[in-house]
Amino acid sequence: MMEEDPNRVIEESSPNGMAREEDEEERDPESNALNQPLLKRHRTLSSNPLAMVGAKVAHIESLDYEINENDLFKHDWRSRSKVQVLQYILLKWTLAFLVGLLTGIIATLINLAVENIAGYKLLAVVHFIDEERYLTGFLLFTGTNFILTLFAAVLCVCFAPTAAGPGIPEIKAYLNGVDTPNMFGASTLIVKIFGSIGAVSAGLDLGKEGPLVHIGSCIASLLGQGGPDNYRLRWRWLRYFNNDRDRRDLITCGASSGVCAAFRAPVGGVLFSLEEVATWWRSALLWRTFFSTAIVAVVLRAFIEYCSTGNCGLFGQGGLIMFDVSNVTVRYHVMDIIPVTVIGIIGGVLGSLYNYVLHKVLRLYSMINQKGKIHKLLLSLTISLFTSVCLYGLPFLAKCTECNPALTDSVCPNTGRSGNFKQFNCPDGYYNDLATLLLTTNDDAVRNIFSTNTPSEYHTTSLLIFFALYCILGLFTFGIAVPSGLFLPIILMGSAYGRLLGMAMGSYTNIDEGLYAVLGAASLMSGSMRMTVSLCVIFLELTNNLVLLPMTMIVLLISKTVGDSFNPSIYEIILELKGLPFLDANPEPWMRNLTVGELVDAKPALVSLCGVEKVSRIVEVLKNTTHNGFPVVVEGVVPPAGLVTRATELHGLILRAHLVQVIGKKWFLQERRRTEDWEVRERFTWIDLAEREGKIEEVAVTRDEMEMYVDLHPFTNTTPYTVVESMSVAKAMVLFRQVGLRHMLIVPKYQVAGVSPVVGILTRQDLRAYNILAAFPHLAKPKGREGGH
Amino acid sequence: MMEEDPNRVIEESSPNGMAREEDEEERDPESNALNQPLLKRHRTLSSNPLAMVGAKVAHIESLDYEINENDLFKHDWRSRSKVQVLQYILLKWTLAFLVGLLTGIIATLINLAVENIAGYKLLAVVHFIDEERYLTGFLLFTGTNFILTLFAAVLCVCFAPTAAGPGIPEIKAYLNGVDTPNMFGASTLIVKIFGSIGAVSAGLDLGKEGPLVHIGSCIASLLGQGGPDNYRLRWRWLRYFNNDRDRRDLITCGASSGVCAAFRAPVGGVLFSLEEVATWWRSALLWRTFFSTAIVAVVLRAFIEYCSTGNCGLFGQGGLIMFDVSNVTVRYHVMDIIPVTVIGIIGGVLGSLYNYVLHKVLRLYSMINQKGKIHKLLLSLTISLFTSVCLYGLPFLAKCTECNPALTDSVCPNTGRSGNFKQFNCPDGYYNDLATLLLTTNDDAVRNIFSTNTPSEYHTTSLLIFFALYCILGLFTFGIAVPSGLFLPIILMGSAYGRLLGMAMGSYTNIDEGLYAVLGAASLMSGSMRMTVSLCVIFLELTNNLVLLPMTMIVLLISKTVGDSFNPSIYEIILELKGLPFLDANPEPWMRNLTVGELVDAKPALVSLCGVEKVSRIVEVLKNTTHNGFPVVVEGVVPPAGLVTRATELHGLILRAHLVQVIGKKWFLQERRRTEDWEVRERFTWIDLAEREGKIEEVAVTRDEMEMYVDLHPFTNTTPYTVVESMSVAKAMVLFRQVGLRHMLIVPKYQVAGVSPVVGILTRQDLRAYNILAAFPHLAKPKGREGGH
Repeated sequence: MMEEDPNRVIEESSPNGMAREEDEEERDPESNALNQPLLKRHRTLSSNPLAMVGAKVAHIESLDYEINENDLFKHDWRSRSKVQVLQYILLKWTLAFLVGLLTGIIATLINLAVENIAGYKLLAVVHFIDEERYLTGFLLFTGTNFILTLFAAVLCVCFAPTAAGPGIPEIKAYLNGVDTPNMFGASTLIVKIFGSIGAVSAGLDLGKEGPLVHIGSCIASLLGQGGPDNYRLRWRWLRYFNNDRDRRDLITCGASSGVCAAFRAPVGGVLFSLEEVATWWRSALLWRTFFSTAIVAVVLRAFIEYCSTGNCGLFGQGGLIMFDVSNVTVRYHVMDIIPVTVIGIIGGVLGSLYNYVLHKVLRLYSMINQKGKIHKLLLSLTISLFTSVCLYGLPFLAKCTECNPALTDSVCPNTGRSGNFKQFNCPDGYYNDLATLLLTTNDDAVRNIFSTNTPSEYHTTSLLIFFALYCILGLFTFGIAVPSGLFLPIILMGSAYGRLLGMAMGSYTNIDEGLYAVLGAASLMSGSMRMTVSLCVIFLELTNNLVLLPMTMIVLLISKTVGDSFNPSIYEIILELKGLPFLDANPEPWMRNLTVGELVDAKPALVSLCGVEKVSRIVEVLKNTTHNGFPVVVEGVVPPAGLVTRATELHGLILRAHLVQVIGKKWFLQERRRTEDWEVRERFTWIDLAEREGKIEEVAVTRDEMEMYVDLHPFTNTTPYTVVESMSVAKAMVLFRQVGLRHMLIVPKYQVAGVSPVVGILTRQDLRAYNILAAFPHLAKPKGREGGH
Repeated sequence: MMEEDPNRVIEESSPNGMAREEDEEERDPESNALNQPLLKRHRTLSSNPLAMVGAKVAHIESLDYEINENDLFKHDWRSRSKVQVLQYILLKWTLAFLVGLLTGIIATLINLAVENIAGYKLLAVVHFIDEERYLTGFLLFTGTNFILTLFAAVLCVCFAPTAAGPGIPEIKAYLNGVDTPNMFGASTLIVKIFGSIGAVSAGLDLGKEGPLVHIGSCIASLLGQGGPDNYRLRWRWLRYFNNDRDRRDLITCGASSGVCAAFRAPVGGVLFSLEEVATWWRSALLWRTFFSTAIVAVVLRAFIEYCSTGNCGLFGQGGLIMFDVSNVTVRYHVMDIIPVTVIGIIGGVLGSLYNYVLHKVLRLYSMINQKGKIHKLLLSLTISLFTSVCLYGLPFLAKCTECNPALTDSVCPNTGRSGNFKQFNCPDGYYNDLATLLLTTNDDAVRNIFSTNTPSEYHTTSLLIFFALYCILGLFTFGIAVPSGLFLPIILMGSAYGRLLGMAMGSYTNIDEGLYAVLGAASLMSGSMRMTVSLCVIFLELTNNLVLLPMTMIVLLISKTVGDSFNPSIYEIILELKGLPFLDANPEPWMRNLTVGELVDAKPALVSLCGVEKVSRIVEVLKNTTHNGFPVVVEGVVPPAGLVTRATELHGLILRAHLVQVIGKKWFLQERRRTEDWEVRERFTWIDLAEREGKIEEVAVTRDEMEMYVDLHPFTNTTPYTVVESMSVAKAMVLFRQVGLRHMLIVPKYQVAGVSPVVGILTRQDLRAYNILAAFPHLAKPKGREGGH
């Protein structure tokens, strides 16, 4: 699984780290002694800078969320005028506005396209069925689905492999501080949009929800950096946004907007980002995110208003107003808590079971997918064929039911594209309940199964077939090479068993069967994804029914509790599977028994630089190590305390990217001396340093230049976060995550002459439980989760 | 303002810091050179450990949110069995359950009491008015209100001054790390409950919402510590909760439950805590908080079900189902964004104006309140009389309006206790619109002014009178010595101007006047309290109408933006006024230009202890300083690196409370030696150390004992968070707040022999902008808020 994919795909248009992806291995800055060859590593604390990105293995890198307070930054900071600060704030809000606007418009267009393509397809199929030309109908249905899947899969496989899947785990990792290459580029965005349209129209068991979250994030990332990598707008105002911190905030806005666009749930979108996706959160960001989702809501509203006059082809109630049950009077009593508890428990068990099996399936699929493009395509197309056959064929197994005009206001039987009580192969006055659920778009299927005031619309057998089918499809569709969301498959599965349970309860309960379906969907979501508040609000906004809220809350809490006792959430499983070094909020209990000093001892010797360093040494260090940060230690200074002894001083931390820039610009000194402030400002600005491209191998240095010196002081971050070597790993990890670090300097607890003022550097990989346990296996006696959970 | 109140009230039953409140001054551990007298302080970086608590000045203290990893803790941690971890988790959830349950029950009882007391009062008054015995009615109305106010005020003034006001600022401060004495005690809880019943029934312009938040927090705090201070349950399981961290989490649950109970808004409650109250937040806590509010929702639901059969006296629709407008079909178009924007802007302006004036009034009131109990009582009673006169007298100014049976389904005229179209002094077939708003409970007033499908129910003049009256009352009622919430007064004011605006818009808009009132209330809340997402959800849950959501969002965003450009939120103003050292999320821009080293230099010399210290020195240090934490520095150790020179080692930080315990238990050594692990465990357990009571002055040490030694190693937190002296104050503050520190050790950036491995200690007060600017006035050239806002 960790080999390089031989068929490496085009990556020119990726926004992040394209240039640096190849040679740097951020994960283990201290992994190599200086002159040791790169491949011959034997060390105790090992780490792995590789992860699955798309279907192939790529180098991943950490993001710099810490503010790099070097001299240039401080000068820029001091000289920023009030106007510039206002510009920055204005731009921040404008970008949040644009993220909302564009996400809203793109979500609208996707809905429009899906509803029309799937709609005309279904209308044609229904037409043939009406004429009893079942085979023609089948061929049309299967053929159209096949072509649409092919379209989506070819796009994904050939142009942007990272567009496959939901993208949410990678966004989660990005906001945690891990950059995966090619995740937020223009090509990914375009492929995601069109691939999603194709895959959803093809009737595959996947949703547009996850992809919309990814689309929102891509839009945010592209706006923040001023366009696609190769055609970036170098606008003066945008330079303030050329840093990982502001991009992180923007991507949070994008992810929220995506959820909002998917479910028309502005508050749910914000909470989803907050609870599931984001690692850091501030009140100010909450507010800006909320602004973005409000814009999305307004855009969607305007669009629905426009389409209500029939301007949008087949787009009617579909797509956006998903499962409005606001007209239902919900009546329940305290005793209804029993069935609700049962739903919650089943949801938790099924959810964790789903996670478990999906994990296995994804492992299998990743082996298939690695065999090459053809295998990926074949897998996708097989699933498409299987899906089409089942969707079209299974309704023939269902018995026709007579329409009961007393029970419902809906048209029965229905021969249209959407709606309840599909006629399918039944005589007039009869409907086929399984066709109502299967021969329709997924959105409509959810609406139909959620439909209230339709008791005994569905037979138990039909629902059982539906449930079994969607369990299989839900497990085997997710991993194929098309943009796919997890929300809808889980909702379909959950609603089926919820409704089944509601039917089983029969007269023992006051709750409508449709509401049981809603609760079932909620419980399975919570059992698999393990969210509570955000799911609750999403379901609230989806169903537009507040009276349901307390029951939804209880269901969600129970199924999360049950699920958590079996395995982690599906997103965590995918993160783990992809090898993304996500830093958890809670340290493991055994981390209290280990100090960072012991951790550093298990790593190779530290490579540090002097304040004024020889060019040859810098080049050597850059070429022979893969570290991304080096401590700058100044020796022989006289401390201001007035002591006669000379001391060593920890000046700070310098980033590889800045060293490469300095060498590249050949800002060399003839003699070993400290420069004046103006000297560096003549050649460098803070904005220059924000650019992180360029590799040391591309820089040519002459033999004469090698003998010259570089003053590193102006480029050094003088305020890196440090911990003393006696700090426990648990507390160090809390610090690392809370303030969003990339490098954490370890300082000695002893004050003594002749010792370096920095003992080592720890990075994200060094703090991962998995890596630490490999080096300190004796710690691995499990004792349950930490108390401070 | 900073004098001690001469009439100090009984404080025995307060849970927090009763014993330590007197003598410790946590805020400035480094403020004194060792032997300097306490009162003769002259130093550069000054700080103030006093704050207004209730109406008097008290010492405040920081909380220990950091995990104190000393030897005893580590031993306890290692020896915790799986069963104990499970016990802990189980207890955590049980407590969250109990917090929800008790808050729900108490909220129910308060509602029941208020609705019945106010209801029978109003019925009697209406009865006299019916008989045209206006003066008797007036005397009854005013007299009852006077007595109820007197009851509430006497309770507050005599038994628990901290129960006055909303309590939310203090909870906010507590969760930020500042402990205010007597805030969460049993007496406060009881006074808050009964005082709130009295004050709300008395018709004062205040709500039960803020008090309910405080009540929830009190319940949580009492449960966490096992009962009131003097009668604490010393249950074995509860010992795990005897720390500030777990109490903090529990109080967060309590605050959320309170909001949920106040508005029947479970999600809104969680979000309120998250957005406004809490400083630290974890996904796990989100979940537990949500559980608590779900319990509250279920309790309220069960209660409403029980009362719907008429078992609860006059309690009907009142109190809980506040402003249900779910039956209203909301219709709006994109063009309606214009009036919505106007509401938002006016809300922002009025909100910040309200904050500004309220600040002035509170300053004035605090001068009056400090004059003694009688002054406090007189002030409260004056306000009560004024309120009664206005509420009863003003409706006589309004014209009687003829009932229009076409317009409404309600009874008109209404002679009952609640409901629209009050008859008051009007003939049959006519109603008095001002009496509908004034001669009723505040909850009913809100319901009436929010009422939809009642256009032209209110005259413009009546609404103007109402608005003007509630502006005055809202400003002058809040500061009196009764439990009072801010939510309801602001909602009343806001709804009045919102409805006025709706009437002014007339036929230009499709939105109902009642919805304008809702939007007006939302805008003023946001303009004054500056919350967005939580208010949005609270209003969503209050109005039970999701279609309103996008408009509410826009209104909230606009009024927050407008308000923020004038002044901070009302809670921040109150925190500032009370002198509570709340640590803001965003550092000031100029903090980047100052290092912690410079800050430490401006403080007096550091007092540190040796690893094995003489008893006399410890006693001396404890008696002569007010510091709460001392660095432990071991000199003359041989570093393991194998150097021949001897080094000084930073062993960690020891807390004053632990030193006092060691001295108190007389765990002394005859000679200067390090003890073995078992020696300390014979005498101390981790649970003992959690007790923070006892003062050094209460400990008697003989002359012989003074010459003995104490081994401080086992009590020292070996993993304090540290920063290097070159760290900028901005980044140090981010660390301080993010990981929840009490003391931050500053280590030198130089590595040299003969220098202490710790340069100084910074505490919360040292990092406050106000204190720093006093010592470094040249930094104070304002340059706008920090960019990273």
